[in-house]
Amino acid sequence: MKLITLLIVVIYACNCLCVTEEAIATNEIPRDEQGQKSVECRIDEEVKREILGYKPVVDKIVDAVTKGDFKGKVYDELAAFVDKFGSRYSGTKNLEDAIDYMQSVLKNHNLDNVHTEPVTFDGWFRGEEYATLIKPRLYEMKILGLGNSISTPGSGIVAEALVVNSFEELVAKSDQVKGKIVVYNEAFKSYGETVKYRSIGAIEAARHGAVAALLRSVTPYSLYTPHTGMMHYDPNVTRIPFAAITIEDAQMLRRMSERGSRLEIELKMSNSVEQGLKSRNSVAELAGRKLADRVVLVSGHLDSWDVGQGAMDDGAGAFISWYSLAVLNKLGLRPKRTLRAVLWTVEELGLIGAKQYVKRHYKDLDKFDLVMESDEGTFTPLGMEFAGSENAECVVQEILKLMDSINATKFQRGNKMGIGSDIVEMTSLGVPGASLLNQNDKYFYYHHTNADTMTVEDPDSLDKCLALWAAFSYVVADLNKNFKDF
Amino acid sequence: MKLITLLIVVIYACNCLCVTEEAIATNEIPRDEQGQKSVECRIDEEVKREILGYKPVVDKIVDAVTKGDFKGKVYDELAAFVDKFGSRYSGTKNLEDAIDYMQSVLKNHNLDNVHTEPVTFDGWFRGEEYATLIKPRLYEMKILGLGNSISTPGSGIVAEALVVNSFEELVAKSDQVKGKIVVYNEAFKSYGETVKYRSIGAIEAARHGAVAALLRSVTPYSLYTPHTGMMHYDPNVTRIPFAAITIEDAQMLRRMSERGSRLEIELKMSNSVEQGLKSRNSVAELAGRKLADRVVLVSGHLDSWDVGQGAMDDGAGAFISWYSLAVLNKLGLRPKRTLRAVLWTVEELGLIGAKQYVKRHYKDLDKFDLVMESDEGTFTPLGMEFAGSENAECVVQEILKLMDSINATKFQRGNKMGIGSDIVEMTSLGVPGASLLNQNDKYFYYHHTNADTMTVEDPDSLDKCLALWAAFSYVVADLNKNFKDF
Repeated sequence: MKLITLLIVVIYACNCLCVTEEAIATNEIPRDEQGQKSVECRIDEEVKREILGYKPVVDKIVDAVTKGDFKGKVYDELAAFVDKFGSRYSGTKNLEDAIDYMQSVLKNHNLDNVHTEPVTFDGWFRGEEYATLIKPRLYEMKILGLGNSISTPGSGIVAEALVVNSFEELVAKSDQVKGKIVVYNEAFKSYGETVKYRSIGAIEAARHGAVAALLRSVTPYSLYTPHTGMMHYDPNVTRIPFAAITIEDAQMLRRMSERGSRLEIELKMSNSVEQGLKSRNSVAELAGRKLADRVVLVSGHLDSWDVGQGAMDDGAGAFISWYSLAVLNKLGLRPKRTLRAVLWTVEELGLIGAKQYVKRHYKDLDKFDLVMESDEGTFTPLGMEFAGSENAECVVQEILKLMDSINATKFQRGNKMGIGSDIVEMTSLGVPGASLLNQNDKYFYYHHTNADTMTVEDPDSLDKCLALWAAFSYVVADLNKNFKDF
Repeated sequence: MKLITLLIVVIYACNCLCVTEEAIATNEIPRDEQGQKSVECRIDEEVKREILGYKPVVDKIVDAVTKGDFKGKVYDELAAFVDKFGSRYSGTKNLEDAIDYMQSVLKNHNLDNVHTEPVTFDGWFRGEEYATLIKPRLYEMKILGLGNSISTPGSGIVAEALVVNSFEELVAKSDQVKGKIVVYNEAFKSYGETVKYRSIGAIEAARHGAVAALLRSVTPYSLYTPHTGMMHYDPNVTRIPFAAITIEDAQMLRRMSERGSRLEIELKMSNSVEQGLKSRNSVAELAGRKLADRVVLVSGHLDSWDVGQGAMDDGAGAFISWYSLAVLNKLGLRPKRTLRAVLWTVEELGLIGAKQYVKRHYKDLDKFDLVMESDEGTFTPLGMEFAGSENAECVVQEILKLMDSINATKFQRGNKMGIGSDIVEMTSLGVPGASLLNQNDKYFYYHHTNADTMTVEDPDSLDKCLALWAAFSYVVADLNKNFKDF
C-alpha cells in the first residue's frame, strides 16, 4: 500500500484501542517479569520508603471498595446508568441526557468543580442498511455499516462480489476488482494487526476499482456477531460504501467462491452526516489540599457506539474514574494535588472530545503529572501499563507493589504514542500516561457490538479495578515530589 | 407444578437433546473411568479376541478418513450442502429441495437402496415478531419466537412485565401475574435442568394469569444471541404467546425491576400453522453381505431450525452417518449385516420423522441390532454413550478400545429413555442405542441460533467423528453374533 495510505492509518485509525494495540503489537520491550527487570531502578531509598508508607492507606481503599461500604457500588451505579440510557452515540439527545445525568451524579457525590466543557464535531449516523446475497442463493446477511462510510445510491448497489483473504490477495487479483463488491475475509491475528482492514479497506478496494466493500468483523470469536467501528477515506481515492459482516458469512462467501460460484450481492446503506454538532466532556475534581493547580487525571469515555449498552466500552472505564474520586472523598482522602476525572465525549468518532480538551488546556499541560485512562476493559485487574521516563517507571513499579492484596502488581512499559485512546493526545505531547492492565482476552468478543452490555461486567472485578484506580491515582497525586519531575 | 404439567414435559419436551440431557442430569451411574469399572464384564474371551481382530480394519478406516483419501472430505460435503441450502426448516420447499439433493448425493456415492419414506406433520411458521420495551425507556429487544407459540392479537400486546428468576418466584408472586407479560430470567444450570422454562414456561405463566411470556434464552453464554426451540401448551390452560430474548436483555429487565422501575413491553408475534404437511426421511444402505435383513442404523437429522445453517444441529450428525457408508463402500468394507443411514426429517418440531419411521418399521424392530445417532455435536470425539444390556456394554467397551489412535475410547452408560433424540423412539422399545460422545461444552452456545453455521465445525474433528462412527458401526454390523443377542 502507498505511503499516503499508511499515513492515514497512523493518523486516523486511532479510535478506541487501535493505537494501543498497534503499539503493543510492535513493542519489543520485554513484558511481565522481564518488563520489570528491564528497567534498572535507581530511585532514592527515601522515595521508596515514602511510597511504602502509603501501604496502610492503599489497604484502606482496597478494603473499603472490595469488602466494605463500597462493595458492588460502582457496578450498581454503572448498571443504573447504562440501563437508563443504553447506547450513547455522539450526536444523539440520549448522550447529552446522559451527560446531564452525570452532572447530577457527580454533584450528588459532592465532588468539586463539577462542570462540562464544550466539544463540536461532525456526526455520522447509521440509516437503513442491509446486504442481501442474491446469487448463488437468496440470503439476507446481518451487517453493521462502518462509521464514516458513505451511503450507497438510493436504490442500493447490486454487483458481483470478490472475496479476498488479504490486501496481498486483493493486489494479486487487481484485474478482477473493477465494478465489484470486495469482501474481506481476513483472519483475525490481533486487533492491532487486523483492524487495518477496517481502517483502510475501502480505500484499498476502491483503488482497484471496487464499487463497495464488506469487512469480516474484526474479532477472534463470533456468535454471528457483526462489529462496527470507524473506517476512513483517502481524499485521492473514490469513496465507496463499507460495512461489516459476520465471520460466519465472510467464511461462507469465501467457501462459495472457492467452489466456483459467482456471488452477487445487493448492498444498501443510507447513512447521513451532520456538521457542527455539539457535545461536552464531563469534569469533576477532588481539589488538591496543597498543590491544587497540579493535576492527576483519571478518565474514560462516556459516549459509545450506537449498538449495545456501551457498558464495557467505555462506561466502566468512565465509572471507575469518577467513582475513584467519590470513594476517596467519602474516605476523607484528599491528596496534595488535584485529582480530576474527565469523562470524554465523541471518542468513538475519533477522539474528538480529547483532542479539543487538549486544545483548551494546552498551556496547562505542564501541570499534568499523570493522565490515566481505562478503555480496554475492566475485567480482573493485573496492574498498569505506563509511558513515561525511566525513573517514573520505577516509581510506578514501587506503587504497584502496594497492590499485592488484589494481585494487581504487574508493570508493563507502554508507548507514548499508544498508551491509551483519549489520553494519547496528551502523552504524545510528553505528559506521563497510564492505562489499566486487565485480563481482557475476551474484550474483542464484545467490542462495538450489541453484546457490549452489563452482562460483560463482573461486580468483583469492577471493584478491584476501582480499588487499583483509586489507590494508584491517590498515591501519585499525594507524593511529595511532582510525579512529572521523576 | 401439577402432575399434568410434569407429564407434558416428559411427553413433549423431547426435541433435540432435552431428554438426553435430562437423563444425563439425573443419571446416578458413575461416569468415565468409574463408569467403565461399574460394569463387570464377563464376555467370552472368544468375543474379545474377535473384536481385537478388527484392529487392522479399524486402523485402516481411521487412517483413510483422518490422513488418507477422505481427509477433510466430509467437511467439504457438509459445507457445500449447508452453504447451498442454509437453514432447512420443516415445511419449507428448501428442506424438500435439500432432501432431493441428498438423494442424488447418496446415489452418486453408489449406496444401496437409496430412497425416501414419507412423513406428514403439522407445521409452525414464524411470522413478523418483535418485542419493544416501552417503559422505562424505548428499546427494541432482539427476540426469537418459540416454536408452537400462538400469535399475539393482530395489533400486539402491550402490558406491564413481571420478571421472575424461577418458577418458585412465579408462584410466590402469583398475585402479581394477572394481565402481565412474565419474563423468565432463569439462570442456566444445564440444558436438561433449564429447558423446562422453555418447554412449560407459557403454561406456568398462563396458569397464574399472564397474557404472554418471554424467556431468557437457554444457553450458558451469549453475544446478544437469542435461541429458539419448541414450547408447549396444556390443553387445560389458556394459550399465551411465548418468545425468547437474550440473556443480556433478561438481566437488564431484572435489574430495572429490582430498582423499582415499572416495565412495560409491547409484544407482537404473527405465527402461522399449516396442517397435513409432507416431508421425507432419507434412507441409504450398505446392504449386508450375509445377514442383509439385520440392521445397524446410523443417523442424524437433516431438518434444522429456521435460523443459522443447521450445520451443527444436525447437518454434521447426518453427514457423518451417510458418509460412514460411503467411506466403507469405497474401502470395500461391506459388513455381514446391513448398515442403514437414516437422515431424519421434522426432528425439531418433535421427532416427527423418527416417530413415523418407527410406526412404519415396527414389526421389523427385532432385526435392528443397534441404532446410533449423532445429534449433540461433532466436536473432538471422545467415545460412545450407550444404552443396552450389560453384556452389550462390555462389547461396546471392547470395540471402543480399538479407537485408541483417535483417543475416542470413552464409554458412558446411557438411558434408553434419553440416549438420543430421534433414536429414543426405538431405544425406548428395547433396541440398543448409541450416541456420539464428544467434547461439546460449547454446543449450547450455538444451539438453535443464527450462529449454528459451518464456522462451528472443524474439519479435523469432523474427520475423527466420522472415523469413529464408521469404524464402530462397521464392527458392530460385522460381528459373528447379532449385537442384540449380547
